[in-house]
Order: sequence, then structure tokens, then C-alpha cells
Amino acid sequence: MRTTLTVLLTPAELATVRERDLGGTVCVVFDILRAGTTMITALANGAEAIIPVAEISEALALKQLRPEVLLAGERQGLRIRKDLTGGTEFDLGNSPREYTAEKVQGKTIVMTTTNGTRALRACAGAKATLVGTFLNLRATSNWLKEHRPPHLLLVCSGTFDEACFEDTLAAGAVCERIWPLYAGGHTADSAEIARRLYPLMQANLVDAMKSARNGRRLLAIPELRDDVWFCVQRETIPFIAKLAPDGSVRKG
Amino acid sequence: MRTTLTVLLTPAELATVRERDLGGTVCVVFDILRAGTTMITALANGAEAIIPVAEISEALALKQLRPEVLLAGERQGLRIRKDLTGGTEFDLGNSPREYTAEKVQGKTIVMTTTNGTRALRACAGAKATLVGTFLNLRATSNWLKEHRPPHLLLVCSGTFDEACFEDTLAAGAVCERIWPLYAGGHTADSAEIARRLYPLMQANLVDAMKSARNGRRLLAIPELRDDVWFCVQRETIPFIAKLAPDGSVRKG
Repeated sequence: MRTTLTVLLTPAELATVRERDLGGTVCVVFDILRAGTTMITALANGAEAIIPVAEISEALALKQLRPEVLLAGERQGLRIRKDLTGGTEFDLGNSPREYTAEKVQGKTIVMTTTNGTRALRACAGAKATLVGTFLNLRATSNWLKEHRPPHLLLVCSGTFDEACFEDTLAAGAVCERIWPLYAGGHTADSAEIARRLYPLMQANLVDAMKSARNGRRLLAIPELRDDVWFCVQRETIPFIAKLAPDGSVRKG
Repeated sequence: MRTTLTVLLTPAELATVRERDLGGTVCVVFDILRAGTTMITALANGAEAIIPVAEISEALALKQLRPEVLLAGERQGLRIRKDLTGGTEFDLGNSPREYTAEKVQGKTIVMTTTNGTRALRACAGAKATLVGTFLNLRATSNWLKEHRPPHLLLVCSGTFDEACFEDTLAAGAVCERIWPLYAGGHTADSAEIARRLYPLMQANLVDAMKSARNGRRLLAIPELRDDVWFCVQRETIPFIAKLAPDGSVRKG
């Protein structure tokens, strides 16, 4: 069987993913700034599971059913305010630095994200779906080397409806590490683009974030600029994160 | 007014283009291997106009109406055979090297292409749409520097439904040349990706084509491998090509 390695560079391609039979495909979803990184950090600090949802209303409905969950998410970069929720307090924003062990140990967290949730849901039919970040780059790459999925789809969540630089770089970092496994098969041009881009920027990822629309936005907000630094740390977390059958993200 | 510079990396994004108001936008469409390059070459050798159409049946219908046109196009890399047309002979394939002055001088050419036509049609509502190639890279860049369109959309035609390496490189080459005009405005991450990729590969574009799915396919067909070399020549043609209101591509 011919292996395939493809990177989805743009959110517009998610529609094509939903039409594919992903039964033999492993997906890795990247949402570096910041939802993916926040999920991995929460799991590293003892959170039980993250339930990604698209809308505030979905988060509130889940809280009704399961009052013990924490509510998390952002709008315009900041924690969701009470006037958007009809009075319910959100416990956390979308800054990974907030997700300390004191706050998240043993908790299930319902997190509203837009691009990350959309991407994870598009991959729901896959054989396995991982959340990939710079923090657990080695763990993710090693898992792929060990399992050698014949069809691998690296999904960049993007920013609004556009391709984003930071997710492409992270997909490129994974491509670079696993390239020999797929070089004899069908490697899409998108994978070539990503894997050639990463070595250009790897020596200074914080600097690279200045070339990213999302990175520039966060760097301009004083209380969030350290998130950018946080999200481009590499190899600080030694485990993978996986989408469970119930739609939650858990330590793999 | 804030300027915008965006690269469409994937054919899936064309659907979003059709929904936009392009009245204030200039588009440049890239289909390097080979339809775009073939069009520019035909115009350089004296062709009057190229009419891009998606289907063989459209080409045959136009020939009925205007018997003087030449029919051009490919399926699986080779000139369209009589058994696909109900007996009509196609005059040309999709190899730019066929489009000599002897064959095309003064002619209107109906050309069936898939990705190139789809991309050109998606841009039909733009203020202006150019066909960009490596052959007329300087002319295209200089035209953009002169006209300074406030909104510029560089459209990679792609290969089937995927991003393609060669169109991304060509878009990156244009980005690199015009970057100072747009650096103060909104430059999309896609433009960063393209402009950083090009300098990596520019010293040896033929070699770069080995990393492109389309390039590898053409290099493996003995009678077409020289097309790859032909399509990555730079600055050999000193004019721009533009989509006319009637949907044909003409010298600009």
C-alpha cells in the first residue's frame, strides 16, 4: 500500500476532510496560538479531559448537565465576560499560563474555541486524532514513528478563514521528523511546503511569531505577550493528547 | 485605507473568493505547470487571445461557432485524442514548447484546462486579473509596483484539489518583490509562507520541481520533461497578461 502524508494548510479544506473516509487515517490537529497549547498544558497539570465546543451556548448547556466542569474560553483574546453568558462566570480564559495544577488538577474543562474545535470535529471519523503542539513535538513524532499510520493528515486549524504561519510551522516540524517514513509514498506538496518552512524559522520561533497575524496580535496585548513565548517552547511535555470517542481530548 | 496582500494556497479557498466583492481587488493567477506558462508563451509568439474553458465540450462548442480558432488542451499530460472529441482534431496540447510563432501567430486559442480555468473564473469579478508566471515575473511585479492595488490576491491554481509547490513558489517570488508596498498593511500569513519559501528554492527551480507532485509527473514522461525546465525560466517575457472582459487572456 502506498502511504500518504498531507498537510491541510487552510480551514477551507476542512470541508473536503468531512467528505473523506478517514477510517484508515491518523490526524494531528495543530492550534498553536493558543487552544491546542492550552489543552496540552491543562492535561500536563492534571486536568482529566478537555471538551472542545464551538459556541458559548454549548459550554453553558454542558455546565447545566455537569455542574462540576470548569468553563474556559476567550473572545477577542480575553476570558469570556458575564455579559456574554447571561451571568455565568467562566473559570478560565485561553492563556495556557492560567492552567495551573491548583486550578485544573482532576478537572474536566469545557473549552470554547473556534478554529481548533472546527478542526477537531472535522477529524472525528479518523482512526485516531492527536492534538499536536511544540510542547509535545517529540512525543507526537515518536508516537507517529511507532505507529507508522499509512495515511497521515496534519491539520492546521488556521486563523479565522485563513492559513496561519504558526500551525504550518508546527506541522512542518512534525513532517521533518517523520519524513523518512513517508518519503517513498505520496507526499503532498503541502507537506513539502511545511517541512521546508520549519528549518528556516526553528532557531527563533518567538521571532517567527512576529510574522504571524495571531502572534502579532498577542504580542501587542501586554498581559498576553508571554503566551507567545510559552506556546513555542519545545519538548517540555512528554506525552501525546488524543481525541476520545466522546469528543473530549485526553492524555494518550 | 489599510492595504491587504493575501495568497490563496489551496483550490478549496476559491469558493470563498466567489463570495467576496472583488471590485477593489487585483488578482494574479498562477498555474506554472503548465497552463499559465503555455498561455504566456502563446501570447509572446503572437497569439491574439487565449480562451480558457473547463470542458472539452465547451471547446468543441466554441469551435462550431468560430471555426478559425485553434483547439488546445491535454488530458493526462497529452494532447486530447480524437476518441474524446467525437472525431475533432485538437491542434495543440499543453506543452508551451509547441506554441511556436508558426503555429499560433494571429490566432485565437481555445484551451481546456482544469485548475487554471477554475481559478481564472473565480477571479472574474476582480478589478483586474493577471496571469503570472516565472517567464514574466518582472513584468508582473513591475505592473503591480506601478499600479499599487490596495488589495492584492495571489491565487495558486493548485493540482487537483491540493496546494501545489510550484504555484506557491511563483506567488512567493512576486511577494518578495512587492513586499515593501504591503508591509505596512495587512499581510496574510499565507503571503509570509510563500515569500519565505521562494528564496530557499530560487537558486535551483528545476531541482525544486522534483519536490512538486506535478513536476515529478512531468519529469517522468520523456517527451514532457523539458517542459519543466521551460516553465521555470525567469524574465524571458517582458509583458503582462490580463483577463479581458470577454473571459479571454490577452497581452496587457
